[in-house]
Amino acid sequence: MDNAIMVKMVMDAWHSKIDAASNLWDALTDEELHSEVAPGRNRGIYLLGHLIAVHDHMLPLLGFGEQAYPQLTEIYITNADRAKTDTATTAELRQLWKNVNATLVHHFDKMSSDDWFTKHTAVSAEDFAKEPHRNKLNIIINRTNHLSYHTGQIALLKK
Amino acid sequence: MDNAIMVKMVMDAWHSKIDAASNLWDALTDEELHSEVAPGRNRGIYLLGHLIAVHDHMLPLLGFGEQAYPQLTEIYITNADRAKTDTATTAELRQLWKNVNATLVHHFDKMSSDDWFTKHTAVSAEDFAKEPHRNKLNIIINRTNHLSYHTGQIALLKK
Repeated sequence: MDNAIMVKMVMDAWHSKIDAASNLWDALTDEELHSEVAPGRNRGIYLLGHLIAVHDHMLPLLGFGEQAYPQLTEIYITNADRAKTDTATTAELRQLWKNVNATLVHHFDKMSSDDWFTKHTAVSAEDFAKEPHRNKLNIIINRTNHLSYHTGQIALLKK
Repeated sequence: MDNAIMVKMVMDAWHSKIDAASNLWDALTDEELHSEVAPGRNRGIYLLGHLIAVHDHMLPLLGFGEQAYPQLTEIYITNADRAKTDTATTAELRQLWKNVNATLVHHFDKMSSDDWFTKHTAVSAEDFAKEPHRNKLNIIINRTNHLSYHTGQIALLKK
């Protein structure tokens, strides 16, 4: 099997789920974004910040460079919703969602099919020799599922 | 790249998400399963029936045989929650979830890595010649994301 076909399968799913989430963010008002997905659960705005922060972490993990928004990690990954005050406005977070995914695509577009099967930065060369599935493409499979999980929750915000 | 590595990446994600959903069903009481994931939205029991029915449809789609539970399609796929009366008990649905996924694994275990890159039954031979990414493994990628989407909602039921 041509590596390019496998890469297309995985990247088509990624782009499809990014588009679905982007359409949801666009359809939600700021007020809806600030409500909880279910009583006592995360607010939409927290999940927006969380997904931006997780996708931003993909930059170093895939060897693309430093995180662009490291200040989001403590608020939207380390801590639960409302433990820390949002420091970015809702409009700013809406823009950062677009920015981080555009930055990822910019780097994706420069990769060959074979590049996707090289190791990501969180696995050692020794472990990768024994576990070659721990490659960059596998990160995309896992992060697409992470995005789908939260998109199922975000969809509950639309009245 | 060895096809077996790609198959492992996709199947590891599938099994991981099946396990996560199974753990959630086991952790939820019948009463929790009968509550809505958010006010006015699907009940947990509907999502359980929906996932069983969608996974059951994978049997013909992957060429494994007929659906085992065709009676679930109308209640849990064609219609929205509460449009039709549940005909199976909660205990029965809990068991069907295990059955359908065990049946899938039984068939998965008989497939070679190369088998996964053959066409699924919803694409014609002509289209598959032009679009070889429309293979059986791609069904698993997409159904894993579908499962993740609803698992994010089911997780909201646990008090």
